[in-house]
Amino acid sequence: MIKTYFYNHSERRMEHDVDLDRMHTFLKSPEDLLWIDLYDVGNDELQYIAKLFDFHPLTIEDCLHVSPRAKVDQYDGYWFFVLHALRYNEESEEEVTTLELNVFLGPNYLVTIHKTPMPTIGRIAAACHRSIEYMNKGPDYLLYCIVDGITDEYFPILERISVRIDELEDEIYEHDDVEEITEEFLAIKRTLILIRRVILPQRWVFKDVNGRWTFPIREENIPFYTDLIDHLERIVDATETNRDLVNRALETYNSIINARTQEIMRVLTIISTIMLPLTFVTGVFGMNVTFPFIREGSLWPFFVIVFFMAAVAGCMLYAFKKRRWL
Amino acid sequence: MIKTYFYNHSERRMEHDVDLDRMHTFLKSPEDLLWIDLYDVGNDELQYIAKLFDFHPLTIEDCLHVSPRAKVDQYDGYWFFVLHALRYNEESEEEVTTLELNVFLGPNYLVTIHKTPMPTIGRIAAACHRSIEYMNKGPDYLLYCIVDGITDEYFPILERISVRIDELEDEIYEHDDVEEITEEFLAIKRTLILIRRVILPQRWVFKDVNGRWTFPIREENIPFYTDLIDHLERIVDATETNRDLVNRALETYNSIINARTQEIMRVLTIISTIMLPLTFVTGVFGMNVTFPFIREGSLWPFFVIVFFMAAVAGCMLYAFKKRRWL
Amino acid sequence: MIKTYFYNHSERRMEHDVDLDRMHTFLKSPEDLLWIDLYDVGNDELQYIAKLFDFHPLTIEDCLHVSPRAKVDQYDGYWFFVLHALRYNEESEEEVTTLELNVFLGPNYLVTIHKTPMPTIGRIAAACHRSIEYMNKGPDYLLYCIVDGITDEYFPILERISVRIDELEDEIYEHDDVEEITEEFLAIKRTLILIRRVILPQRWVFKDVNGRWTFPIREENIPFYTDLIDHLERIVDATETNRDLVNRALETYNSIINARTQEIMRVLTIISTIMLPLTFVTGVFGMNVTFPFIREGSLWPFFVIVFFMAAVAGCMLYAFKKRRWL
Amino acid sequence: MIKTYFYNHSERRMEHDVDLDRMHTFLKSPEDLLWIDLYDVGNDELQYIAKLFDFHPLTIEDCLHVSPRAKVDQYDGYWFFVLHALRYNEESEEEVTTLELNVFLGPNYLVTIHKTPMPTIGRIAAACHRSIEYMNKGPDYLLYCIVDGITDEYFPILERISVRIDELEDEIYEHDDVEEITEEFLAIKRTLILIRRVILPQRWVFKDVNGRWTFPIREENIPFYTDLIDHLERIVDATETNRDLVNRALETYNSIINARTQEIMRVLTIISTIMLPLTFVTGVFGMNVTFPFIREGSLWPFFVIVFFMAAVAGCMLYAFKKRRWL
Amino acid sequence: MIKTYFYNHSERRMEHDVDLDRMHTFLKSPEDLLWIDLYDVGNDELQYIAKLFDFHPLTIEDCLHVSPRAKVDQYDGYWFFVLHALRYNEESEEEVTTLELNVFLGPNYLVTIHKTPMPTIGRIAAACHRSIEYMNKGPDYLLYCIVDGITDEYFPILERISVRIDELEDEIYEHDDVEEITEEFLAIKRTLILIRRVILPQRWVFKDVNGRWTFPIREENIPFYTDLIDHLERIVDATETNRDLVNRALETYNSIINARTQEIMRVLTIISTIMLPLTFVTGVFGMNVTFPFIREGSLWPFFVIVFFMAAVAGCMLYAFKKRRWL
Repeated sequence: MIKTYFYNHSERRMEHDVDLDRMHTFLKSPEDLLWIDLYDVGNDELQYIAKLFDFHPLTIEDCLHVSPRAKVDQYDGYWFFVLHALRYNEESEEEVTTLELNVFLGPNYLVTIHKTPMPTIGRIAAACHRSIEYMNKGPDYLLYCIVDGITDEYFPILERISVRIDELEDEIYEHDDVEEITEEFLAIKRTLILIRRVILPQRWVFKDVNGRWTFPIREENIPFYTDLIDHLERIVDATETNRDLVNRALETYNSIINARTQEIMRVLTIISTIMLPLTFVTGVFGMNVTFPFIREGSLWPFFVIVFFMAAVAGCMLYAFKKRRWL
Repeated sequence: MIKTYFYNHSERRMEHDVDLDRMHTFLKSPEDLLWIDLYDVGNDELQYIAKLFDFHPLTIEDCLHVSPRAKVDQYDGYWFFVLHALRYNEESEEEVTTLELNVFLGPNYLVTIHKTPMPTIGRIAAACHRSIEYMNKGPDYLLYCIVDGITDEYFPILERISVRIDELEDEIYEHDDVEEITEEFLAIKRTLILIRRVILPQRWVFKDVNGRWTFPIREENIPFYTDLIDHLERIVDATETNRDLVNRALETYNSIINARTQEIMRVLTIISTIMLPLTFVTGVFGMNVTFPFIREGSLWPFFVIVFFMAAVAGCMLYAFKKRRWL
Repeated sequence: MIKTYFYNHSERRMEHDVDLDRMHTFLKSPEDLLWIDLYDVGNDELQYIAKLFDFHPLTIEDCLHVSPRAKVDQYDGYWFFVLHALRYNEESEEEVTTLELNVFLGPNYLVTIHKTPMPTIGRIAAACHRSIEYMNKGPDYLLYCIVDGITDEYFPILERISVRIDELEDEIYEHDDVEEITEEFLAIKRTLILIRRVILPQRWVFKDVNGRWTFPIREENIPFYTDLIDHLERIVDATETNRDLVNRALETYNSIINARTQEIMRVLTIISTIMLPLTFVTGVFGMNVTFPFIREGSLWPFFVIVFFMAAVAGCMLYAFKKRRWL
Repeated sequence: MIKTYFYNHSERRMEHDVDLDRMHTFLKSPEDLLWIDLYDVGNDELQYIAKLFDFHPLTIEDCLHVSPRAKVDQYDGYWFFVLHALRYNEESEEEVTTLELNVFLGPNYLVTIHKTPMPTIGRIAAACHRSIEYMNKGPDYLLYCIVDGITDEYFPILERISVRIDELEDEIYEHDDVEEITEEFLAIKRTLILIRRVILPQRWVFKDVNGRWTFPIREENIPFYTDLIDHLERIVDATETNRDLVNRALETYNSIINARTQEIMRVLTIISTIMLPLTFVTGVFGMNVTFPFIREGSLWPFFVIVFFMAAVAGCMLYAFKKRRWL
Repeated sequence: MIKTYFYNHSERRMEHDVDLDRMHTFLKSPEDLLWIDLYDVGNDELQYIAKLFDFHPLTIEDCLHVSPRAKVDQYDGYWFFVLHALRYNEESEEEVTTLELNVFLGPNYLVTIHKTPMPTIGRIAAACHRSIEYMNKGPDYLLYCIVDGITDEYFPILERISVRIDELEDEIYEHDDVEEITEEFLAIKRTLILIRRVILPQRWVFKDVNGRWTFPIREENIPFYTDLIDHLERIVDATETNRDLVNRALETYNSIINARTQEIMRVLTIISTIMLPLTFVTGVFGMNVTFPFIREGSLWPFFVIVFFMAAVAGCMLYAFKKRRWL
């Protein structure tokens, strides 16, 4: 599907579904803005757009294949972005999937390419039918709006993960089902690793390590991009914090398990250590042999044996007490 | 609540609760200083102040929402800060909560916005009723006083955490209650992770990685900010040290548990290994079958059996001795 | 084997197996391109080529020995590269082996030296028989094509490792054969360590830490190298992600094992703790001594004993319930 | 206690306990050097000195409070240092304590402030009574001598820790007392964490990350400071190495404990697995019921039972052999 | 022992054991080269050389003491190096020991000082008797030859460690002797930590972090130093890789031990859980009391009991099957 939105600056109004074959007329004025949104398109449509704008073959190759790493490349007269939105489905095997968004940013046009419809772009496109608010501040502002919308979708995901870690922390004290808890740990950790992989390069797309913008931004739009960078860094921060929290929970889980195993061992050992020698004593007197000192019908052997066993048990309890096992 | 403090440099005196509608008269002289402190305010008051000073909409948005990351943004003629104070409540589920403080720093004004009253700001505001000491050295000095007050509140918290780690180190040798100890580990680690998340960006707000101040500071106030940076780095240091200490304690706790489990196992194994074969021997002679070599009424079978069992036990004790289990 | 490919720019055609003794005639025009591909050669051929081009003895030494680290060295008038392809064989003891590729890049020539035939170079060489597409854009483009081909071979390997980690995650819940699972962990980790060792220096060969190209690239070929860097960084990313995933799986495996051991211990302890005291009671009454209160032929001692044992078992079950062991 | 040492360059001799009220006469010549050493002083003396030299209030505040972080601050005409010596007491609860040393370095004076007497300063002060060797090369050389003396005290401490780690490595194979070993691990780790916290900032006090000296040093004294930096880096290195060694020892200790537990378990399991079924068999024939096939007085039931039990034990031993448990 | 080698450039020949008292005549021509090799010398000889060349006292101090950290210091007219060779003895307690080499590099002289003879220097010195190849390219080339020889001695050591790790990986599946395996882990880890400590500073001696040479190198000798840096980085790489591999092996060893312990526990628990209740049943009927329903001489009680016990065992086996313990 190819959708086009054209902002006519001189008449201050929007046009839709313009005829792309007359494209050179749209790009004449640097004040106008043409936005072409492609989704669910085949190779033919892509090649058609590439030819119209004379895009480099490498960028089209990137659009056709999956590019798991966000980036910005400067070409002759335009910038090519690879960005990613997240789709989060807690119930599915793969909790997090990425939606790739390819963007061409030119002096007075913006081309966005994505495989499936994206809610953020849908919302902005719908608004563009009604008003000029998104398109009258240059292509960099329109790009900001799209990326900001995508970025805002990360926050509820990280919020939900944070809640899941809290729940997990309570569950590790219940310790009912090992598999359930460890699978939850595995799932959260995998999700955090994948989010981190997606978000970390995204952070460097707009501003490089030397604090310079990677592409020209209008003076009045700089505060918006500063704000965007701040949002991206907050997401990176939250991912790191969540990772630390989940690691901490896993370590604690292991400590709890170890400590509980030790407690169980202690009980087992106390019981065994007291019972086994006593049972041995009863076994000795259960043998079908003639015992010395024991006369048939006399009661005192029974009481001597019982007293002896009570003494043995008492000594052992005292030894355990001294070792602080009781 | 909107409170205003105005320092009139020419008359060298303070004014309070000035009429903000005449604000342009206050900001005429660059030597004067106007401080507006807003707390517990709604959107209306915020918009009113924003309109007075012509603040950028993005800053007002940041004031209205929670911003977990400290930052400084430069705007046209003023600087916008997001800073955080810590509130520590050891008894609550969430030991550490953050109080956000938003600051607008202009050439001769300072606007502070916070949701709930803050002790540091209350103390400085009270002093401003009595003297001009906080406000006669420029807005950067007033900002320093506020941030220094907030920063000083971190030290007792870290001191308390350090004491708790020391207590925990003693407790891990008592090992009474697994849940209590592991929950204390969880709590301290979570608190340190959250403090670290708050304090680390705060450190870079005033001086960037290249050692340059992020906003202009009067020559005579630079020693104060150098001191502030030193305090912030000390807090980061103390957080790292505490994290190392708590990790070390957790590792040791796991070692202790493992080593104790092994000791318990050793006792169990020694008892079982000696008692089970002996009990088996008594079982053999407890069977209701006719034994060879054993005559009814003869005492020597009993003594032979006892001697044999003593020999078995002796051999096993010797084997344990050789393996250094005893 | 020495193969030569010569692109004659003025006539826009390819020549093959040219006479290297007339080499000075080939290198006259800066627009032409001579590619010499050496593989499976001895010292003599290497020395012959080195003499022709006047290569530095240290580079020839590097060609003769194994150089496990990718690098680029600038010499007088040419650049010397050490690069590595990967050969992956999941069944063999050493899953990953590296194939070294040495490249000399001159102003209008390219010399490639490798011990065994490489598929990528074979493919490009075959194409050079038919067309001029690889050789009419300068030696830097030809080098890009070769390195890009080598780099593309990394992706299916990392893809396969990713699948193996997924399989391993399922296997750790089956826990049939310890050795098989731990050997698989060992194998994947070793493979990732070795890939990382090969790929990390490769990433810095073309673009240094300051973002400058390490050798001159024609303006029109820069997008290709930018794309290559992007591919290399994706591989580094994927390696890191896989490493995180396999570490996470190993941690989870350890947690599962610990938790299962604890569960097994609990069952053992419950059984032992109930059975051992009861067996002791039966042992007491199995002794061949005269008991008080027990008359021959009376049935109530049996019922009293059974009732007593049931009471003991009941109390213990209640205690386990309270400790949440059941 | 305030001690003063004055080097008169024109007369090339030392004066002691000079009258500080005539201080301006001492500081006239840039070739002279005045050293004031304060220790065990109250607020009054500090304020007196601060007033004499016009020191900034923030520096005096730092002198009065504990500053756990080494630093150097530049003020108008002088530099203020916070440095730390270590006091090591292996027997005490807190093995390592820090002694703070505050230094003011001026063009021709040096003021040192410390709470308790320091051996290094005492030694240099004593030498200053006899000779001019420490004071005739400028205040930077005197500072170097003091810091070098403090730094040299670190080496025997790290040497002793290294020996303790070696001893610990031997002890973990003896495994007598869990608490003793784990407490020793805890103690060494704590000490290393604290030394690291003290020494790491100290390393950056004299030379910053860009390799520039943080204060002006006379040309002829630069080799001494280069040597000092080298000593500090050696201490940092030794701390890191010791940390790695102690972590390695702890990991090995845990491995040993685990492996020993497994060995003990194996013995227990073999004994139990052989003895329990056999004891069950004897129990069966110990029941007071009538058995089929067993005639009173016949010997063959006994031999059949013994043979059967021997066969069961043999089978189990064979199974253990196959599983490599024996 | 003091050995001298003098290269006379004008006559293109070597002289040996020259008279150092006429040293000023040797150093006249910048084309000549004087190499003084000192080993096994006392303080007197050192002081004599120091006086001849006017070396700084701090360098002589470094020569007399052990300096565990490689470094280069620039002095007036010469450079002072501390370098280290490795001596590896697998059988000794301390597998790796370092041999310190101190070098003074002047414009046309080189002074090398070491405690014991070094094979590399011996080899070069022997060659210098026969030919001028080592000494006719300036003192920097002679230094390169010495350091390259020392560096090449590292490779077989790392190769041997790599083989030992491979062997260890096989041994952890045999698990015969805990102490042997953990001691081997300890030994390899210690050796890697110590090699790393030696080699890491060595890497920064010749080229600093900004990629600049730390001392002037003749244009034609730069390829040799580039090659040397490459060798040093390869050693650092190999050390890191070996460290990763040995950590991975230790983690796997711990996993194997845990998993095996769990397996053993499972067997123990199955045996105990089946045998203990059955033995209890036999104990009940072994009591010397009158049982209800059991008539003397009747066979059916025996068969009822056996059937009941078989049923109990069957139920338990079924329960284990369901829990996947069998």
